[in-house]
Amino acid sequence: MKIPKHIGIIPDGNRRWAVKNGMSKENGYISGLKPGMEIFNICQKLGVQELTYYGFTTDNTKRPQVQRKAFTDACIKAVKLLSKKNASLLVVGNSDSPMFPKELFPYTNRKNFGNGGMKINFLVNYGWDWDLKNMANSGASNRNSIISNLNSYDISRIDLIIRWGGRRRLSGFLPVQSVYSDFYIVDDYWPDFKPSHLLDALNWYNKQDITLGG
Amino acid sequence: MKIPKHIGIIPDGNRRWAVKNGMSKENGYISGLKPGMEIFNICQKLGVQELTYYGFTTDNTKRPQVQRKAFTDACIKAVKLLSKKNASLLVVGNSDSPMFPKELFPYTNRKNFGNGGMKINFLVNYGWDWDLKNMANSGASNRNSIISNLNSYDISRIDLIIRWGGRRRLSGFLPVQSVYSDFYIVDDYWPDFKPSHLLDALNWYNKQDITLGG
Repeated sequence: MKIPKHIGIIPDGNRRWAVKNGMSKENGYISGLKPGMEIFNICQKLGVQELTYYGFTTDNTKRPQVQRKAFTDACIKAVKLLSKKNASLLVVGNSDSPMFPKELFPYTNRKNFGNGGMKINFLVNYGWDWDLKNMANSGASNRNSIISNLNSYDISRIDLIIRWGGRRRLSGFLPVQSVYSDFYIVDDYWPDFKPSHLLDALNWYNKQDITLGG
Repeated sequence: MKIPKHIGIIPDGNRRWAVKNGMSKENGYISGLKPGMEIFNICQKLGVQELTYYGFTTDNTKRPQVQRKAFTDACIKAVKLLSKKNASLLVVGNSDSPMFPKELFPYTNRKNFGNGGMKINFLVNYGWDWDLKNMANSGASNRNSIISNLNSYDISRIDLIIRWGGRRRLSGFLPVQSVYSDFYIVDDYWPDFKPSHLLDALNWYNKQDITLGG
């Protein structure tokens, strides 16, 4: 079986899940932590080399404050849980903004935790424009120099993007690293994660003819 | 019904269609012309404001010469057919390269044909890196200045991308204009286009909650 080297995770549907379960929207995020750790564990076993989580974006920070606080807290908790694993962990996002939680400053340089291992990228206060504008004064002239001048330069090309919650869009997720990615959509909301979602996505990916645009 | 202002068309599957019909791969492209004109006509009637066709890419030019000649010829014919419509037509791609057909030089500045009308963009010898590297010396610092410094600056944000041929990927299609786009996949190959494909995509789009990342 062809295992993607790098999987991108768009864990959408937390708010809709909360409403469906009779809670107010902001109470959905915390239920995304367990799925995040489960997917880490499965990917580690399968030998996936890199995993990128879409935490929250600069667009998301325009939501009501109670939601902003809830998703920021969930991201802080998620990064701390991941730092207890064997992982090479990096938080990527605009840390010059007050929307970036100070608790995550120590993670803005890649660091090995435990025995190191799978490369984990966690996007926090990430914006596609923030990412791209770093190359605006770079003189980048080819694919390699474009990528090396992104703010997300330490995140590799993504093979497979899995999005939960039924929407079929990138919502600003790493526009350069996703130019050739295959997309797989799970209709269930992220807090309803089941291992079969990931396994179905991998089975589907295994049947794709990867051409990198050729 | 909510009609997308701007639809992107990824007309994939021409070669697989040819093989399925007992022809050699390069003979599939010419059968993509009729679908291209049909989709123009339907979008015009529906009041779509802008339509972008993914012609061929710099990645595609690495294919065997006989295929390259066939898809280049099909793109030249398609642009000439579109220039007989009422349209505001622009060809976008790297025209400094020998892979760009000289027959299309006259279309590299936007021009009204007939009574003008729907904005039509046709990508020819387009590369995502070619597009992005134009901003490398621009000093662009925000969303508007990023977009206005792309080589594809005259192409707007895309609301709905429809891809034929079953693959679920962008293959380098306009990475900046597609950050918030909804994707709809048609499993049939492009030469097997039916109007119902487009209408199904529009019905699906009509049910989406468009948030622009918010």
